[in-house]
Amino acid sequence: MGRITPRHEDYSQWYLDVIREAQLADYAPVRGCIVFRPYGYAIWENIQAAVDRRFKAHGYRNAYFPLFIPYSFIQKEKEHVSGFSPELAVVTIGGGETLEEPLVVRPTSETIIGYMYAQWIQSYRDLPLRINQWCNVVRWEKRTRPFLRTLEFLWQEAHSVFATYEEAEEEALRVLDLYTDFAVEDAAIPVIQGRKSESEKFAGALRSYTIEAMMGDGRALQSATSHNLGQNFSRAFEIRYLDAQNQMQYAWTTSHGLSTRVVGAVIMVHGDDRGLILPPRLAPIQVIIVPIWKGEEERSRVLEACEQARRMLQPEIRVEVDAREEYTPGWKFNEWELRGVPLRIEIGPRDVTERQAVLARRDQPGPQGKRTVPMDGLREAVQETLSAIQADLYQRALAFQKAHTHYPETYEQLREAVADGFAWAWWCGSAECEGRIKADTTATNRCIPLEQPGGQGRCIVCGAPAREMAVFARAY
Amino acid sequence: MGRITPRHEDYSQWYLDVIREAQLADYAPVRGCIVFRPYGYAIWENIQAAVDRRFKAHGYRNAYFPLFIPYSFIQKEKEHVSGFSPELAVVTIGGGETLEEPLVVRPTSETIIGYMYAQWIQSYRDLPLRINQWCNVVRWEKRTRPFLRTLEFLWQEAHSVFATYEEAEEEALRVLDLYTDFAVEDAAIPVIQGRKSESEKFAGALRSYTIEAMMGDGRALQSATSHNLGQNFSRAFEIRYLDAQNQMQYAWTTSHGLSTRVVGAVIMVHGDDRGLILPPRLAPIQVIIVPIWKGEEERSRVLEACEQARRMLQPEIRVEVDAREEYTPGWKFNEWELRGVPLRIEIGPRDVTERQAVLARRDQPGPQGKRTVPMDGLREAVQETLSAIQADLYQRALAFQKAHTHYPETYEQLREAVADGFAWAWWCGSAECEGRIKADTTATNRCIPLEQPGGQGRCIVCGAPAREMAVFARAY
Repeated sequence: MGRITPRHEDYSQWYLDVIREAQLADYAPVRGCIVFRPYGYAIWENIQAAVDRRFKAHGYRNAYFPLFIPYSFIQKEKEHVSGFSPELAVVTIGGGETLEEPLVVRPTSETIIGYMYAQWIQSYRDLPLRINQWCNVVRWEKRTRPFLRTLEFLWQEAHSVFATYEEAEEEALRVLDLYTDFAVEDAAIPVIQGRKSESEKFAGALRSYTIEAMMGDGRALQSATSHNLGQNFSRAFEIRYLDAQNQMQYAWTTSHGLSTRVVGAVIMVHGDDRGLILPPRLAPIQVIIVPIWKGEEERSRVLEACEQARRMLQPEIRVEVDAREEYTPGWKFNEWELRGVPLRIEIGPRDVTERQAVLARRDQPGPQGKRTVPMDGLREAVQETLSAIQADLYQRALAFQKAHTHYPETYEQLREAVADGFAWAWWCGSAECEGRIKADTTATNRCIPLEQPGGQGRCIVCGAPAREMAVFARAY
Repeated sequence: MGRITPRHEDYSQWYLDVIREAQLADYAPVRGCIVFRPYGYAIWENIQAAVDRRFKAHGYRNAYFPLFIPYSFIQKEKEHVSGFSPELAVVTIGGGETLEEPLVVRPTSETIIGYMYAQWIQSYRDLPLRINQWCNVVRWEKRTRPFLRTLEFLWQEAHSVFATYEEAEEEALRVLDLYTDFAVEDAAIPVIQGRKSESEKFAGALRSYTIEAMMGDGRALQSATSHNLGQNFSRAFEIRYLDAQNQMQYAWTTSHGLSTRVVGAVIMVHGDDRGLILPPRLAPIQVIIVPIWKGEEERSRVLEACEQARRMLQPEIRVEVDAREEYTPGWKFNEWELRGVPLRIEIGPRDVTERQAVLARRDQPGPQGKRTVPMDGLREAVQETLSAIQADLYQRALAFQKAHTHYPETYEQLREAVADGFAWAWWCGSAECEGRIKADTTATNRCIPLEQPGGQGRCIVCGAPAREMAVFARAY
């Protein structure tokens, strides 16, 4: 195993070291692209299952739309084209011939899905329509970082159509709740629900909602977004329906996305200087069993007990026995700590005799995280400990977020606050004030939180009356 | 609902009609691409689950490699480049600028995965390595047909590395068995396992294996392939390992793929003139409950009984109640038959009184497929009937395959045989004889079946001594 740079020394390098040493991803031989290695991809598979289940319960069905979008489609919605044009990958040659119309590799699918929806929707009886897609998308980013910002990434994009503005707005907020529930319950990540400012919203949206999480260095990460697209795309693509009075109406659409950058959030929110710490619900391996023995006689007894423990835990719990003989137990402890397995079970010859096992929590390294449990109650003890780890990781992340959240009252205090974490501040709503903060501090307006303190104040930049607080932070 | 052309009138049109009317797919606004609509995509999700489970049980782990492959990679293996070059989609512009090296949209990933494997593999201890990927691929096909041949399609591609030729060869055959097991058990499709001839094998393979299925018009469909790639890719990409004697060796690699064309196979093997018939294991909806009532009083009693039936069957069985009021029961019967739901449950006011329900099998339309069962034993009766449908569909497809399989002894008989179905014939092994059959009849050499009758004969084309029989057929 290579060295992991301590976080206080160089947080960015720590992040890259963890990804490399835990074998989550590797750099691809294409600029800005990564390979999701099996361990990293398995985290994504667990995220997919958790999110997919929630979308299906909410009435979404999965479908699949083409990777390629005619160039002319992207140009149909004027804000959309100006937002995405600089980031497009374009196919100009197919089957050895130059294409008459170049094809864009989808950066997002509002346009091509809008085109299809226009064919499928005739009457109000066809509404609401809710479809989700799991796929790859490409955005030609200049600066990239594994998981957080890559040329190609994986995501789900859900696209819905409604008869009224109210339903579309309600859907945008309901899906935001869905994402929040996933973040809190499965990823153990506390988030702030908020509205994006005009300059930060999705290109083509009427209104964008976001969940913002705080990473281990105090920076923000936009972890999922939910957009009320108004009638912008329905007008561009003629998504219309006959209402109950037989009048033709433009529909109201929404879109919602969560991507593989959530894997980056999980690394940064929970990891420590030993490496990754995975919340049990997303961990590919929830429990690793490490046998401890010397000599042939101990070996067979201990391995047998380990296998027995594995069988007691499967299939409800994702468990493996690390029976490799070329490594010492101490080496294995380090490796599985680095890879973030939430719970380790140690079984040695004395444990076999006493019919017991030692549980060691990844989130509490050292003696305080260890306890000995009887084999008879192993399954219950493991389940209970995994639940406790899941809950404690959330509480720890929440406490960190609170400790690094500030309520500056002066512009100078704001500067200090965003150097440490999140700054809640009154904001007049103008792009100029937002822009000045960005120019001065690199911090951006992350969102206008849905939960406001109430009352009113004065804009922290210009002093004008302000009715809403915004959260400013440096962001990934 | 639109009309479905009878199969005997125009089989090709029947296929397209079923796809459109059952809402499996729609044409995309990009030449040769389709949209997988929710009902069609749900079949693919069930196929994915069934195949993924088998790969994982066989030691494969999922990962994800980039969509884009540097153009130079494709050129490294000489047969691979000549096979795939005419079919490539090429990205030449990224972020508004012309790329120095064009990027190929992956037609298959041997090259980029081979490049990564060369970084990851150092020693014999790193072997075997088994990784699978679910993704989209693009091949610039001239003539396309929904599911069977599209510019973009979805598939899994598994890529493995071994220390020896023997292990690679064994893997190619074991994964062929895995695909066969899926085809037989889940898709209810009988297949012939065989080896591809030199001219039909994968571009860059030492040896290609296939499972070939017979469609409802007697044509063959290659339903999955498994390749022993020899050392072709390991030499092109320097996939080497230190053996136990500390000698550097080139590794042996394999690859294995199954795609969304299997959805086309399911349609064509099982469908009839009423539409789709889905094998229960792959059906998105296994049971549809249709209430039959007149007037308010009957309505509430019948709907309550339908809901009760649904609750009895869920969650083990994928069941829905069709409570729509704008359609008659007869209209619903037709629609769900068209969409291939394996089992319909009818509940009317008399059934409520008698505490019973009527089961109607999709594969046996008319009175002989109906029976009345008591509500108390509904779940068992439904499970038993679904199993019977699954088994009967396989047997019916097998009988059809046998009825359309011929053993011609003369070239003239061969011509007649391939006009009807599969022709088993002795073949000398030469590309010339294979080529002549193709030129004369459009039938191709589908495979040299692994199960040979034994003995020997004379090539059906040239009369030279032949030690193996091949299966010739027109194919999709």
